[in-house]
Order: sequence, then C-alpha cells, then structure tokens
Amino acid sequence: MKIDNFSCPLPVASLDTVQLGHGSGGRLTAELIDDVFLAHLGNEILGRLEDQAVFSLPPGRLALTTDSYVVDPLFFPGGNIGELAVNGTVNDICMSGARPFHLSVSFIIEEGFPIADLKRIVASMGAAAKASGVSVVTGDTKVVNKGSCDKLFINTTGIGVVPDNVAISAHNLHPGDKIILSGTIADHGMAIMTSREGLSFQSRVRSDTAALNGLVEVMLAVSPEIHAMRDPTRGGLAATLNEFAKASGVGIVLDGGAIPVALEVRGACEILGIDPLNVANEGKLVAVVPPLVAPGVLAAMRRHPLGCEAAVIGEVSPDNPGLVACSTGLGAMRIVDMPVGEQLPRIC
Amino acid sequence: MKIDNFSCPLPVASLDTVQLGHGSGGRLTAELIDDVFLAHLGNEILGRLEDQAVFSLPPGRLALTTDSYVVDPLFFPGGNIGELAVNGTVNDICMSGARPFHLSVSFIIEEGFPIADLKRIVASMGAAAKASGVSVVTGDTKVVNKGSCDKLFINTTGIGVVPDNVAISAHNLHPGDKIILSGTIADHGMAIMTSREGLSFQSRVRSDTAALNGLVEVMLAVSPEIHAMRDPTRGGLAATLNEFAKASGVGIVLDGGAIPVALEVRGACEILGIDPLNVANEGKLVAVVPPLVAPGVLAAMRRHPLGCEAAVIGEVSPDNPGLVACSTGLGAMRIVDMPVGEQLPRIC
Repeated sequence: MKIDNFSCPLPVASLDTVQLGHGSGGRLTAELIDDVFLAHLGNEILGRLEDQAVFSLPPGRLALTTDSYVVDPLFFPGGNIGELAVNGTVNDICMSGARPFHLSVSFIIEEGFPIADLKRIVASMGAAAKASGVSVVTGDTKVVNKGSCDKLFINTTGIGVVPDNVAISAHNLHPGDKIILSGTIADHGMAIMTSREGLSFQSRVRSDTAALNGLVEVMLAVSPEIHAMRDPTRGGLAATLNEFAKASGVGIVLDGGAIPVALEVRGACEILGIDPLNVANEGKLVAVVPPLVAPGVLAAMRRHPLGCEAAVIGEVSPDNPGLVACSTGLGAMRIVDMPVGEQLPRIC
Repeated sequence: MKIDNFSCPLPVASLDTVQLGHGSGGRLTAELIDDVFLAHLGNEILGRLEDQAVFSLPPGRLALTTDSYVVDPLFFPGGNIGELAVNGTVNDICMSGARPFHLSVSFIIEEGFPIADLKRIVASMGAAAKASGVSVVTGDTKVVNKGSCDKLFINTTGIGVVPDNVAISAHNLHPGDKIILSGTIADHGMAIMTSREGLSFQSRVRSDTAALNGLVEVMLAVSPEIHAMRDPTRGGLAATLNEFAKASGVGIVLDGGAIPVALEVRGACEILGIDPLNVANEGKLVAVVPPLVAPGVLAAMRRHPLGCEAAVIGEVSPDNPGLVACSTGLGAMRIVDMPVGEQLPRIC
C-alpha cells in the first residue's frame, strides 16, 4: 500500500498573530516550535522534540527552582519578560551556590498575540541563556482564548549542581556575620513602575535584570563559606532580610547610609512615596558572610562588572531575633518590617 | 538595643479570596504558603522555604519536563486542574522510562479567586503526588489583577532518573514493531467538552486523569526494550503517532477496530462530529515495542489496573514513511492526519 503525502491546507506562514491552533499540539504547534522556539533557543537536547529532556549532569546535589513571570508591560526600560524569565531563574539557582545548567520554558499566550513580539521575546531569551551559559532543554506552549490571559506569561524552571563544599541557607546566619549587597537597589521595580505610570523621569530608570551566576562564581572562588545568599526580588531587600532573620532566629542591623540607591531611583521613590527597601531587584544579590572572609569576598565582587558597587550594609546581631532594624542617619533606628501587601503588582 | 515585636495589622486569616498582596513576596504570601501550600504539599525539602530546592537523586541520566495547565473548567467530571497538573507531568517524565522523583509547582492566580477552591485544588495535588510517589519540592505564586487571567493556571515541572538500560525515543521506531495502547481513548477531552457544553450525557463521560508511572514500571520489568512511548494528550493519538512516524521515518498502520473507545465517549464524539483519534487523553499511553517482547509487555499491562484494556492496535511499516493509516473496517484504509488547528481549546 502506497499513499501520497498531502500538502498543508492552511497558509500558515502568513499568520502574524498567535491562534488557538498554535496550542493544539497539532501542526500549527509544530510550526510555532520550528519557526520561533527552535530558531532562537535550539540545541541538541531541545531539538529532539521529545515530551521530556533527557541529559546527564556532573555528580552532586541538584538545585531546582521555578518562577512564573507575569510582568506588565512585557517590554520595559532595560529589558523584557523573556530575558527576565531566564535571568530570574538562573539567579534563583545560583543563589544556592549551584552552577546553573538547564532551563525548561513554558508559555501561556493570549490568542491574537503578535508573533513578531513573541519572536523578539524568545530571541532575547536565547541571548540571555547564552550569556549565562544555560540551555533551554524542554518547553511547552498553551494558547488561551482572547481575554483569558493578559498577553503572555512565561514559566521557567531551572536546574543546577551544587558544589560539595557549599551549604548556603536562610537558616545559616550567625551573629557577627556581615551583610554584603552587590549594588544599587530598587532599579527593576521602579523601572516597571515609572514605565507603567508614564512618568517623565522614566527614561533614566532602567531595570537591572542580569544573570548573577558569574558573580557568584568569583565569590565562591574566594571562599565557599557564604552562609546565606538571595536575590531580593518581590518584596525587595526588606522581605529577604526579614526572611533571613526569622529563619535563623537572629537580628539584622543595617547601616542605612551604606545601602546604595541610584539618584534617579531615589527621586522616583520619593515622588511615589515608596520605600526602596521594599522594591524588587532583578540583578542584585545580598550575601551573609563570616566577618573574616567578608573583606576578600567584597573585594572580589567589586572587581566583577555586576558587583562594582558592592558594599557591606550591616551585620547580624544576637539581639532582637527575627527583627531587621536600620539606622536612619540621625542616630536613630527604625524597624524594617516585612512588606504586608502589594505595592507593585506584576513586577516580575 | 531591644525592640518589641509588632502584631500583624491585617486580619489576614479572615480573607476568603486571593488578594494581590498574596503574590507580593511579603507577609500575605508567607501566610498563603503556610496555610495552603505547606498544609497540603509539605515535606522536608519544601518546608525549608528557600528560593530553590536542593536535593540528591540516585545516579543516572535525568529527565526534565514542563507543562502549564490552563484547563477550563477547573473542576470537571473525574478530576480537577490540580491532580491533572501532577499526573500530567508525572506521565511526561515516566514516558522516557524514568522514575519520577520531584515536581516544582507554580501558580498564576486571578485576584478574587476563592481560597476554598484553591485549597481543594492544592489538596488534590497533594493526594495525586502521594499516589504517584513524587514530592513537590519548590514553588512559586503570582497573583494578577482581576481580568488578567482566567481564574487559575498551574505550571508543574518534573524531574526523574532514567534507568541505564532504557533508550525510549520517538526516533526509535522500527518496521515490524507493535503499537500497544493502554486503554480507551478520548475520555479526558470529551469529559471537558461535554462538561463545558452542558450536554446531557456528560455525567457518564469522565476524565481518565491518572499517573502512569506504576504501569510503566511493570512494563519495563518485562523488558527494557520499549522503543518509543508517549501519553497522547493534546492532539490525541493522531498527533502522537504522526510525530512518531515523522521522527523515525516509518509508516504506521492501525487496526481501527482494535482501538478501544468507551460507548458513551463514542456517542459524544459522534454527536459533536469529533474524531476520537484527535482527542486528548490524560491517563493513557501508547508504546512501540519489538514484536518478540510485545506479548509479554501486553500481558503485564493487562494485569495492572490502568492497563486492563490494553491492546495491540497496529504496527510499524517500512512503507509510506511519515504517514499514519487506519483500517476503516470495510477493508479500506484512511489517512490519520496530524490535527491542524484547535478543536478543543484549554483541554489541559
């Protein structure tokens, strides 16, 4: 029995927006995978197009992390949702000290979304993955009816391998440890906020989205003895340090004057009445290190492009367990509370 | 310096719907994690509440897979989005022959979503995870403004370990291989469809959502020589077999009369004019095995509760590479084409 093959009945290549059929698992899905995803993210593992990626990693403990990105707008000063989704998940992996290897990517796309925008976003995911040395090895696409989601959401889940001699955890803070911040805070959150509000100073405030695994590598090369590390995203530095203090049952005392905030970001925060300590960052880390190794770690950070403004911003105290306090510059201390509600929805 | 602790300023426990603040990374997020996620999914790794899970797995190749679930309605005959999200990802892992170990879970929730519904969904995720022997080890929650997503989307990403002697791939089909299907097709898709349309026969059509890792285990115990395996979800058996035929450059010939379809499902398909071969399944697998091991694999499947209706439904042919054909019962053959567009949006 011989049967002739048929040609495709639809002029698919001419579609310029995403259709429900692109999420059907059928021929349109296959074409979207070829034209958009493989074109920009392709590698040997992803190219096999199995329902799962199969690969080997070096021996060691694994680090697994997931984040869904719902940032609005999709394109903002300093980046877009695609590179944010790659960098954010790379950062969550490497904050455990792990070397990031692979990502999965899952798209939820609103029917009618422009394919040109999707290509731009996926292209910048490819560039961000290349820059941080990770591969997208498996993925998924769902398309929902117009009105059922706001344009585009992206989930990335990442896997890495933790070096044997590293034990980084929010539970590991010890009194006397130094708190080191890698650079200015509140850039990402205020870039989204000012861009969304159309404020006049927006052009000078840009997201700090960046992959921090290279910076972490130089820090660990100085000393594997980093006690805790995190990238302060949603909830900002205030949320991260409160979680650290609570998890380890210690107090944290910050030197308010030592926390770097860019001038234009400080201005935007003041106009909008927002505390920069509560604002999301996407390319900064805070590390808690023993006092003896702090100078060496700090010096190494300052030699890295993403850590040139690194500073010791405080230390861990045995007093007031669970509380974060900050000097105000007038000799007084204020409590830095865990943010309760939502100042800036859809920041990441 | 001693500072008194403060009590929470909001009566959070009395909230009965999800607020934007639940996704802020602040105190409301922490409470949602405690009250809902840890209550139903908790385990030692998840309970650490780090931004990433760190764990060890047995040595071997890893399998990684991701899926976002956008099914509408959230609750349907036979299941809900929560157990679907666990079972679906467990299935994508074990279709590589891997033993599934861990999942990440990420929620995108519409502001105003009832917390009682969220608890029901998360509880059934916990039950499904327990039933299939996997742990949810890390997670993420985003809340978007009312109208920015339709109620609730869930991403699950899973990791497993592939046994050394297994090499399952869509590229591995050989002429003469037998096609084995584990049971009736089209149950899940038609359950969603009839429930959505409010059709009168809906009460008799139920989703087949189930985790297939136990079934795969008994199949591999008979023979590791399974050439290809997949759970035919979106696009149905037609999409899966077309992908197999294309990837391996072989033809597939099906015996239409041997493909089990439940009577009520066949009826629903006929009324709605839908080909059951194109309809999604969520608890079925199709395996391609060498003819010599097929009888043993089939017998083992039939002894398992999820494979008691397993059947050989066709075989791989050297003719017509890339094409799937099906006997119609009248001595004629029809082409089973790759579905092009979308018959049933938001089926999973």
